[in-house]
Amino acid sequence: MTIEFISGGVTAAPGFTAAGIHCGIRRNKEKKDLALIVADRGCAAAAVCTTNIVKAAPVYLTMENLKNGRARAILANSGNANACAPGGMEAARSCVSKAAEELGLSPSDIIVNSTGVIGQPLPTEVITSAIPTLVGVLSPNSQDAAEAIMTTDTFSKDAAVKCTIGGKTVIIGGIAKGSGMIHPNMATMLAFLTTDCAITPTLLQEALRDSANRTYNRISVDGDTSTNDMTAILASGTASNVEITKKDADYDIFLAALTAVNLELAKKIARDGEGATKLIICCVQNASTEEAAATIAKSVISSSLVKAAMFGSDANWGRVLCSMGYSGEKFDATKVDIAFSSENGKIEVCKHSTGLNFNEETAKQVLSPSEITIEITLSDGTAIAEAYGCDLTYDYVKINGDYRT
Amino acid sequence: MTIEFISGGVTAAPGFTAAGIHCGIRRNKEKKDLALIVADRGCAAAAVCTTNIVKAAPVYLTMENLKNGRARAILANSGNANACAPGGMEAARSCVSKAAEELGLSPSDIIVNSTGVIGQPLPTEVITSAIPTLVGVLSPNSQDAAEAIMTTDTFSKDAAVKCTIGGKTVIIGGIAKGSGMIHPNMATMLAFLTTDCAITPTLLQEALRDSANRTYNRISVDGDTSTNDMTAILASGTASNVEITKKDADYDIFLAALTAVNLELAKKIARDGEGATKLIICCVQNASTEEAAATIAKSVISSSLVKAAMFGSDANWGRVLCSMGYSGEKFDATKVDIAFSSENGKIEVCKHSTGLNFNEETAKQVLSPSEITIEITLSDGTAIAEAYGCDLTYDYVKINGDYRT
Repeated sequence: MTIEFISGGVTAAPGFTAAGIHCGIRRNKEKKDLALIVADRGCAAAAVCTTNIVKAAPVYLTMENLKNGRARAILANSGNANACAPGGMEAARSCVSKAAEELGLSPSDIIVNSTGVIGQPLPTEVITSAIPTLVGVLSPNSQDAAEAIMTTDTFSKDAAVKCTIGGKTVIIGGIAKGSGMIHPNMATMLAFLTTDCAITPTLLQEALRDSANRTYNRISVDGDTSTNDMTAILASGTASNVEITKKDADYDIFLAALTAVNLELAKKIARDGEGATKLIICCVQNASTEEAAATIAKSVISSSLVKAAMFGSDANWGRVLCSMGYSGEKFDATKVDIAFSSENGKIEVCKHSTGLNFNEETAKQVLSPSEITIEITLSDGTAIAEAYGCDLTYDYVKINGDYRT
Repeated sequence: MTIEFISGGVTAAPGFTAAGIHCGIRRNKEKKDLALIVADRGCAAAAVCTTNIVKAAPVYLTMENLKNGRARAILANSGNANACAPGGMEAARSCVSKAAEELGLSPSDIIVNSTGVIGQPLPTEVITSAIPTLVGVLSPNSQDAAEAIMTTDTFSKDAAVKCTIGGKTVIIGGIAKGSGMIHPNMATMLAFLTTDCAITPTLLQEALRDSANRTYNRISVDGDTSTNDMTAILASGTASNVEITKKDADYDIFLAALTAVNLELAKKIARDGEGATKLIICCVQNASTEEAAATIAKSVISSSLVKAAMFGSDANWGRVLCSMGYSGEKFDATKVDIAFSSENGKIEVCKHSTGLNFNEETAKQVLSPSEITIEITLSDGTAIAEAYGCDLTYDYVKINGDYRT
């Protein structure tokens, strides 16, 4: 099974176009705030949405529109989450109707979402009046769309892979945004994907959910699960592979390729967490089950104390062990080995749950780069899992002490 | 039922003495690091300890010593948690033995705990050689002991109440420390209490657990549950009330009085969270059950985004609603009212889960004082509960980016 990363994002697969413009939701005219992704034909479609019981209006509308497992376009804006705002559902419907009209589609063919501040009315007119312009600039380049869904993100996020399914080349590409309120639970922040793979809507949904569980659901920036989390995918079938209709070898390749794209996007979200200076990877091995390993790893990268220590390049492994202990998973707490590693090397700091003598200067060096791995070895089995987070910095506090103004 | 706050702490009840000195665990000679609390006779005793599966050695030793429900003294140090350190249990036993010898008690009469950095060997000699001095300065004043258990706390924490049980005056007093790694689960950070009430060990344990659930278990500073959390109580019986042996009216008064002391200490811990500038109280009313109200309130005060917004005096109620939504509790998400209040007044910001127009300047004023209440009204029932947290500030990051050095 060869999965090769290629350049491009949500339009890497043939037959997809995208656009991103500044329409006026955000005050800063330099910041794009409206994105559109369109397939040149009907697609199998799937989405995984937030489990927060407070959901944004567009999330409900997308769930409604995806009941038949088909869609052709994705409309998204930044600068306003359209959550808990007066008339939110009507506003979402108006935007979708206008986009459908301009694209010659049915409104139910459109997946929609919003991201930004919660509780303020969506400026519907501003969006609908810009949609003709947006449709006019659709192109095979997805960079503008990737930028238009950014909020406090500091860089746009895309990823694409190429693989072979049933002798045919299949491409899967996507864009994502993250930054704050990131602690996805059975879903993610915004991530939009396309593929030319032929696959049934049911299996597409299953692959997306399974893949999200192993990627977006393993990242955390601040422990807050958003009202708007969503990852959605359109599959056009133009790769001409025999349609995937069951969980066979073809499905396995598709799932692995989809997970590769999602993992790349998830890591980019973690690395670009609000205020973050470092990507923190926690790898737990020799666990009893993959789920246990994932839960423990996620507890570690979610700990404010671990995150602050990583910011300070402080090899405070006691906090790592402590955060494992309250993860809710059982493990042999007397046989935990911990090491830190990075491009600057590796240092073992704890053996059988007891501190080792280590050189503080070396530890500081290992923890200084922008990507750090916390390696945890248990003695409970053979399962392994990783989780992805970021450090906690002054800038996280600064960004979120005054987000709305 | 009258419960009256009185001055004093863990020695407010007659027959208890305490001491706190600098013995040398901490480098800074200005900081006391060893505390002792002693009863002049045998006491019923109880403790509630951390649920973290990684537990410090002294926690295990205390659990062992309390099997008979009796104790006479509490020994505690700061500057070193004696958790995940080589020879931790031997070190704890040595300290307890020395204290028992100096006090003329059995080692099993002593409750012991430590707080501070995880993973470094406890300097046993430093402690044991200081114990005679410590015993020599025992006095009816508990201020030194309260200071000696502080780590990054900025002020010492005590509280005491007086009530009448069976016609007799009963006093309950305590000291506590908090600051970081505070997200107690079935337990708390260090809180030591004494009372002259006559009560069986079984009911004392039950009252302490029930009370901890409604006080310490409703605070969070940073979501991290420590390896050393403990609240312990000694009850001497010298108040000469008829011993409380069942859950009658006397028990109810005792529980209420104990809860009053614990709540006061818990709020002081929240207010003094690492780097905190504000105590954040979240009050949820009209919930389906008290447990639901408590879970929702705790989810709100634990949200990094809510905490950062409170630091910035930003009335970002969308984050409040969002954090309620991922609490895991069910509630009618379309009928949530939210208001902020403080000594500067009250401002309603959300009605039926939809934003109200409000004056941003007024909101800023309401959110500026050092104690803020987030008032949430549901439409699910009549239950009510509060949770207590603090704001997230630059100083939290500063303190924890470089804790060990």
